[in-house]
Amino acid sequence: MKLSRFQDHPTWGFIDWALRGVGQVVFQNNPLSGLVIVGAIFYNSWVYGTILVIGVIVGTATACLLQADRSLIRNGLFGFNSALVGVALVAFTSEDFRSGSFPSAHMLVYIACAAALAAIAFSSISALMGPHKVAALTMPFNLVGWLFLFAVLKFSSIDAGPLAKPVSPEQYAMVTDYVLPTWYMGIGNSIGQIFFQDNWIAGYLILIGIAINSRISAGMALIGAIVSELVAVAFGAPEGAIRDGLYGYNAVLTAMALGGFFLVLTVRSFFYAVFGIVVSTWLWASVAIFLSPIGMPVFTSTFVIVTWAMLIGQHGFKALVPVPPAEATTAEDNRRRMSGGHDGG
Amino acid sequence: MKLSRFQDHPTWGFIDWALRGVGQVVFQNNPLSGLVIVGAIFYNSWVYGTILVIGVIVGTATACLLQADRSLIRNGLFGFNSALVGVALVAFTSEDFRSGSFPSAHMLVYIACAAALAAIAFSSISALMGPHKVAALTMPFNLVGWLFLFAVLKFSSIDAGPLAKPVSPEQYAMVTDYVLPTWYMGIGNSIGQIFFQDNWIAGYLILIGIAINSRISAGMALIGAIVSELVAVAFGAPEGAIRDGLYGYNAVLTAMALGGFFLVLTVRSFFYAVFGIVVSTWLWASVAIFLSPIGMPVFTSTFVIVTWAMLIGQHGFKALVPVPPAEATTAEDNRRRMSGGHDGG
Amino acid sequence: MKLSRFQDHPTWGFIDWALRGVGQVVFQNNPLSGLVIVGAIFYNSWVYGTILVIGVIVGTATACLLQADRSLIRNGLFGFNSALVGVALVAFTSEDFRSGSFPSAHMLVYIACAAALAAIAFSSISALMGPHKVAALTMPFNLVGWLFLFAVLKFSSIDAGPLAKPVSPEQYAMVTDYVLPTWYMGIGNSIGQIFFQDNWIAGYLILIGIAINSRISAGMALIGAIVSELVAVAFGAPEGAIRDGLYGYNAVLTAMALGGFFLVLTVRSFFYAVFGIVVSTWLWASVAIFLSPIGMPVFTSTFVIVTWAMLIGQHGFKALVPVPPAEATTAEDNRRRMSGGHDGG
Repeated sequence: MKLSRFQDHPTWGFIDWALRGVGQVVFQNNPLSGLVIVGAIFYNSWVYGTILVIGVIVGTATACLLQADRSLIRNGLFGFNSALVGVALVAFTSEDFRSGSFPSAHMLVYIACAAALAAIAFSSISALMGPHKVAALTMPFNLVGWLFLFAVLKFSSIDAGPLAKPVSPEQYAMVTDYVLPTWYMGIGNSIGQIFFQDNWIAGYLILIGIAINSRISAGMALIGAIVSELVAVAFGAPEGAIRDGLYGYNAVLTAMALGGFFLVLTVRSFFYAVFGIVVSTWLWASVAIFLSPIGMPVFTSTFVIVTWAMLIGQHGFKALVPVPPAEATTAEDNRRRMSGGHDGG
Repeated sequence: MKLSRFQDHPTWGFIDWALRGVGQVVFQNNPLSGLVIVGAIFYNSWVYGTILVIGVIVGTATACLLQADRSLIRNGLFGFNSALVGVALVAFTSEDFRSGSFPSAHMLVYIACAAALAAIAFSSISALMGPHKVAALTMPFNLVGWLFLFAVLKFSSIDAGPLAKPVSPEQYAMVTDYVLPTWYMGIGNSIGQIFFQDNWIAGYLILIGIAINSRISAGMALIGAIVSELVAVAFGAPEGAIRDGLYGYNAVLTAMALGGFFLVLTVRSFFYAVFGIVVSTWLWASVAIFLSPIGMPVFTSTFVIVTWAMLIGQHGFKALVPVPPAEATTAEDNRRRMSGGHDGG
Repeated sequence: MKLSRFQDHPTWGFIDWALRGVGQVVFQNNPLSGLVIVGAIFYNSWVYGTILVIGVIVGTATACLLQADRSLIRNGLFGFNSALVGVALVAFTSEDFRSGSFPSAHMLVYIACAAALAAIAFSSISALMGPHKVAALTMPFNLVGWLFLFAVLKFSSIDAGPLAKPVSPEQYAMVTDYVLPTWYMGIGNSIGQIFFQDNWIAGYLILIGIAINSRISAGMALIGAIVSELVAVAFGAPEGAIRDGLYGYNAVLTAMALGGFFLVLTVRSFFYAVFGIVVSTWLWASVAIFLSPIGMPVFTSTFVIVTWAMLIGQHGFKALVPVPPAEATTAEDNRRRMSGGHDGG
């Protein structure tokens, strides 16, 4: 790939790694994908765009300072959790969830430390999951995000608004009149909400960013969003929550993870991924209710729980062809490499 | 054993595995034990009996579809968590906890998916616990059960009643007049509640099912029920909760797990098991209170927590003789094999 | 060391191990440190002193009965979690948190069983963390402490008071007038609260106990207390909570763990430890709020979460020099041994 030229560049390298970090949120180790996604976030709000960039820089820089494994840094793996931590902390403490408010100086220090801890926790959770050949996914972000969001309201120097965004299906009116925008806005938002962007157009732009690097991943993301909508509608979920993409964003991530990235895409693993999509859709509601007594958002924890539950035990299932995290490049490459081996053998 | 004939049968094999799956809930890898237990559940309610059978079939079939390890399937290990998931989801969404209401079509799909996920999660949790030579126990059921029960009330297509059954000691009147039925009904219910059966006669029938395969396990189950009642009475627990078997069902499972099944039964391990019974009795109340803000039942999580806490570190204690999960057959066999080895050596 | 004479003594050995167990709460494997700390606790309250001694004896005796590894027993490692469980259960069920009330006979049995389970759980959690070369820290205490504290109010035979001590920043008035006693009392209490002692003079006495064995650890403890106060003040935390040492006690433990004990003290690891102190200060508030729906205290869980998050992944960071738990003696020894190896090589 021509792009790898930047990855090794003494000056531009860091920018390349940071952009890959943004792409890694949706499993795309590609700086161009990252750039398009950064653009999509800026399209929705310059606040979120700026914070996303700060987050990914802090995470990657922390790993450099601690002399982490170069290849992990160069593939953006220390950046993606930190980027999400930054955006999430701003999103859930802003007066207006949609556009975000730029954080105070105190809050910026707080966010930077959270982003640094997310990079450190990525190393720890990767070590914990290592023996099972399963990736840390966004668990570092979820745990660090929760811990820092819990505490933020308890310091008078941080002027945080209330949680402005409904975070649980209970907070939506039980309306079940599904209309056309439920569908096209819901699908776009299901992708946008991965980055906490309540903007369906930004969602479709992110989808383009994914497609630049992997057509299969983009296809699975779309299937994830559509199937999760179908399930939510079939089970009579509140229209507002569906339209906001809340039932879908965990399902979209599960779809990409199981549909080609960590399992070679075959007919069987496709249905396995669809099962994961259905379960992720239901269980978003579940985790939301579990967290409601403390008023915490779900983040992408449902995706991590379902994907871990379906991947950790994969070596016990001969019907699936697992891809070790270190070898997972793109869904297309995984397929070529693994089936190539079969053909030649 | 003559019975193994069915285990290998091309047609009857599946039924054999499913019945073993029912038996595995109480550590009995024996289709006859499974059959007696199915009978005991049907004796209480045809709804629960039917759901139990559906659950165990879905779990075992999922494992077959995913081409899981044959010997695990043939020993019923993919069925027992799925069976419990089915019964628990019906029990805690029925108007009448005791008899259960037959689920709607939507709910049946939902339960079948939960049962399938429980089988997949069994493989994952087994992989996680594998390096420590400790079994997954009913943790897959507890986690999947909680996740699916949280969400069920949030879909208008599923007409779920409120949680009809008190799930925490706080919900019982603080009556401490213990009478004769506190004892004989409490002991029976302590065994019945393992399958969420509020029927003390069904409990004694299940005990017979256990005794068919292992006299030691049946004895430990009875000791577990009696000791847990003694502890609850000595510490002044509410009479209603004791009579309903709520203080006892986790203790009964702990008693069987530590008393011969995963540790060779010796004088020392017997007292270790009694300690586990006492702790399980207290900590049921604990987990109930922990879960009360979200209104979730304890299921058999206390048993898993206590048993894991007392088994994971077992290799550090020379006073105990651990039995690796793969070699745990019956308490009697474990004793014979392990002490036999000592005699011969 | 002359003191090791007692460690091997047939009669006095057990006392030596128990005193080391008290010292191990603050990472000091030294009976004299333990003795000074016992004195500090008795200085505050004979009730807490007595319970601390009972706890450490029960934990160590449990390990002896189960024939655990002799060297772990002899270094006090089976005692420190049990000691804390005892003190915590009394502290949070006493009418007066500061001085404690002596428990009833029922409660004593209950505490002794909790202390025994903590020793067993120490073995289990050590086994779980073993592959990652990370110690169990006080996690056994935190988990067993929570489980037993949840249940205690549900038994009429145990006459437990309400939780008399505020356990979350929400329960303090939002006063932010910091005065001189905020500082010197806050620093002392930050050390005292590790043992749930609301007495700043006892805190400074404990610091002396630490200094007897390791000047570096004592220095890091002091730095931990001071930095955590600075952070809490800078972010406008409630004055009462700071003065009570609540923001600091987890930070003090993190400071000692990362500052020399489990990582060789270098300029880099010093800043790593300071980062850990800052994060621990914030996240105490976080865990407090997470636990507030069930009214549970934080104990030292924040310290464990932060230290684990920062140590489990340490092998991925070449900037740090990890010390395996089995080789961690004192911060001074770790430094000598590790840099000695470098010099010679």
